[in-house]
Amino acid sequence: MASVNAPRGMRDFLPADKARRERVLAVIRERYRAHGFDEIETPVMEEHARLHAGIGGDNEKLAFNVLRRGLDADAIRAAADEPSALTDLGLRYDLTVPLARFYATNRGDLPAVFRSIQIAPVWRAERPQKGRYRQFMQCDIDIIGDASARAEAELIVASLDTLAALSLEGATVRINDRRALDAMLDVFGFPPEQRPGVLITIDKLDKIGPAGVSAELRERGASAAAVDAFEAFLERPAEGEPLAYGERQIRAALPDGVPDEVVAHLTGVGESVAAARPGDTRVPLEFDPFLVRGMGYYTGTIFELAHPDVGYSLGGGGRYDGMIGRFLGQDVPAVGFSIGFERIVDLVSLQVADAAPAVVLVHDRDVAVTELIALKARLVAEGSRVRLEQRTKNLKGLLDRASADGFTAFATVSAGATREGLELKPLA
Amino acid sequence: MASVNAPRGMRDFLPADKARRERVLAVIRERYRAHGFDEIETPVMEEHARLHAGIGGDNEKLAFNVLRRGLDADAIRAAADEPSALTDLGLRYDLTVPLARFYATNRGDLPAVFRSIQIAPVWRAERPQKGRYRQFMQCDIDIIGDASARAEAELIVASLDTLAALSLEGATVRINDRRALDAMLDVFGFPPEQRPGVLITIDKLDKIGPAGVSAELRERGASAAAVDAFEAFLERPAEGEPLAYGERQIRAALPDGVPDEVVAHLTGVGESVAAARPGDTRVPLEFDPFLVRGMGYYTGTIFELAHPDVGYSLGGGGRYDGMIGRFLGQDVPAVGFSIGFERIVDLVSLQVADAAPAVVLVHDRDVAVTELIALKARLVAEGSRVRLEQRTKNLKGLLDRASADGFTAFATVSAGATREGLELKPLA
Repeated sequence: MASVNAPRGMRDFLPADKARRERVLAVIRERYRAHGFDEIETPVMEEHARLHAGIGGDNEKLAFNVLRRGLDADAIRAAADEPSALTDLGLRYDLTVPLARFYATNRGDLPAVFRSIQIAPVWRAERPQKGRYRQFMQCDIDIIGDASARAEAELIVASLDTLAALSLEGATVRINDRRALDAMLDVFGFPPEQRPGVLITIDKLDKIGPAGVSAELRERGASAAAVDAFEAFLERPAEGEPLAYGERQIRAALPDGVPDEVVAHLTGVGESVAAARPGDTRVPLEFDPFLVRGMGYYTGTIFELAHPDVGYSLGGGGRYDGMIGRFLGQDVPAVGFSIGFERIVDLVSLQVADAAPAVVLVHDRDVAVTELIALKARLVAEGSRVRLEQRTKNLKGLLDRASADGFTAFATVSAGATREGLELKPLA
Repeated sequence: MASVNAPRGMRDFLPADKARRERVLAVIRERYRAHGFDEIETPVMEEHARLHAGIGGDNEKLAFNVLRRGLDADAIRAAADEPSALTDLGLRYDLTVPLARFYATNRGDLPAVFRSIQIAPVWRAERPQKGRYRQFMQCDIDIIGDASARAEAELIVASLDTLAALSLEGATVRINDRRALDAMLDVFGFPPEQRPGVLITIDKLDKIGPAGVSAELRERGASAAAVDAFEAFLERPAEGEPLAYGERQIRAALPDGVPDEVVAHLTGVGESVAAARPGDTRVPLEFDPFLVRGMGYYTGTIFELAHPDVGYSLGGGGRYDGMIGRFLGQDVPAVGFSIGFERIVDLVSLQVADAAPAVVLVHDRDVAVTELIALKARLVAEGSRVRLEQRTKNLKGLLDRASADGFTAFATVSAGATREGLELKPLA
């Protein structure tokens, strides 16, 4: 017999947990909507070929694939040489590839600039470990059809406002641009074919430090001159005062030779984010010339959400102007921002009780069913949420659980009880 | 390249549709919760062995199975003789099997009588046809741990109240009991081994009529005496007045020989449902001795939700006291009621606008991005939902789409516009 547990790496959510998650999702959805984004939904499955077209990066390897229906013994034997013949569909490993497919399918019915919300689970067959699940929620907003810095600004303002609504004020968005990274590597003398590997190494700067990065770049076969130029750049004298986010800071953090349009785009994002926060003296952006982010599909700005309370990123995203074209045959600019729901849900404590009163009726064993049902119906009609519980020896345990499930009051019910005679007492 | 559409039989939901579905789901969730049910969530996948243990009936054949990760050529070749070796997990085809598994896993953390809500998608590889989808939502409530008629009454009252909240008042629950069916077939002289087939035929009574049913029963090899007894029962003279739901009506609709406890349970359901609706002269129940319902796991009451506006069922359920024991090794009574969301969502027209004002800012091409972002932020801070749209030649089309997406007002924005100067006009 199969195990009685949920499948490995996947979770059941009991009532208290489920309610907490839904409350956080409701806040996220409401804030995203306020900022003009519209929720859509796609099927959890996409065609296998779609999910394995090289867009999903390492996540493609983690996809759960769905077995083709109706395979006979011969077809299975033949698939030994061509395993992809066993599968025609797969579970999505992110919400970006399905969004690109959705946009290509439904473009004619969408606004010229389409701002989407996707709040939905994704699946990855990762080795289960602390904090990593094989089914988890993603909360993405994306803007398709706007190449200007306004798109990044709308995403960043909406995301920061959402975090603030979850009592996570004070977050910062670290920002960079893939084109700035590419130009920087050109300036140092890394040839284009080494770029993907070099970026993977540079992405470790926080973890292994400048010396570690230099050593790994040499191991990768980078030229001594390029590594020296990179080291020299890292060791250049710092400015006297740290600059506020803006053109001067961005220029100062980059070597000469990065195209003006890249700097202008990054500067424009900052100006628009600042315009949205007129009372705020601090622009909540931080230019980080060594921010890389893993996915291969990014073509422009990339960002990560940092919060002073935690050492890990709470979300991120970037511009992927090339992807829609892969589906549509025509390039359309796109940029997205994803909030790390599974990390955030454990940080926030939204103890918002239901608006309606929630009452547990604790009844003696001998109360007639019709009496109980009538009392319950009366309280429901008055606008309450009502749970019936037969009295047990451990009344405290019973009430504690009801309290954890969001109930706020209780009353004891004996035979012949009436609505008017009920004495509602608050739950601790 | 793969097709640009969603997978066969699965649907994308655009903003207006998604919003409508979410509004209906919110009403269902809120009503279920008011009646003391608590929402839970299980992973979309369960272990393959779990999904194919014979509980799921015909739905087991429709399951989407997930390909095992890391199969090599030898393992695939070997699976030609044992195809189940290709798969370890499957997508759930209903919410009942996962609920039974969930209860077995988490019983220690749940109340003695556990009232669950599950609002979630399920997947079936059905041949796509009108109104049938391969991914669709189910909205289930279940009560585990209560063998009394109170459980059925709570489910029925909550379901009817939910339909009424969706403006589908006047629904009726058709009810029967598998034990009454079994006893009736015994009385007529059908042997127990013919029961499953005979029930499948009797289930067609509405469609093919008494003569059709008799003919099919004979084809199935039923004895002439049993078929004659069944026919004679169908043709017995009707009572003068149709009886209201209650013990007399149930007795009159059944042959002699049905156990008293079954009649008492059915009568008890009616008394409790009536107690919940003190102002209502009509008990919204209808006893139907030929209601069968397909699933093999039902052990007691079965019901179906009928509405005068439509010729098809809007939901149903029943008691499945044996199933939890298959998982837990210990019998626990259980009964569930499922609302047919995909049918209902097309019937109801909830034109509830968002509580917050929703404004489209239609701007000229030359308005600075910072000005637009600042105006938008100001309106969002005032509590509005805000979408930015660049003016196009087809302004009407633009505004119509915004209206379909729930926006309620618009304003045109030229360079230098201020919040104070904005003139908000209602959308049609």
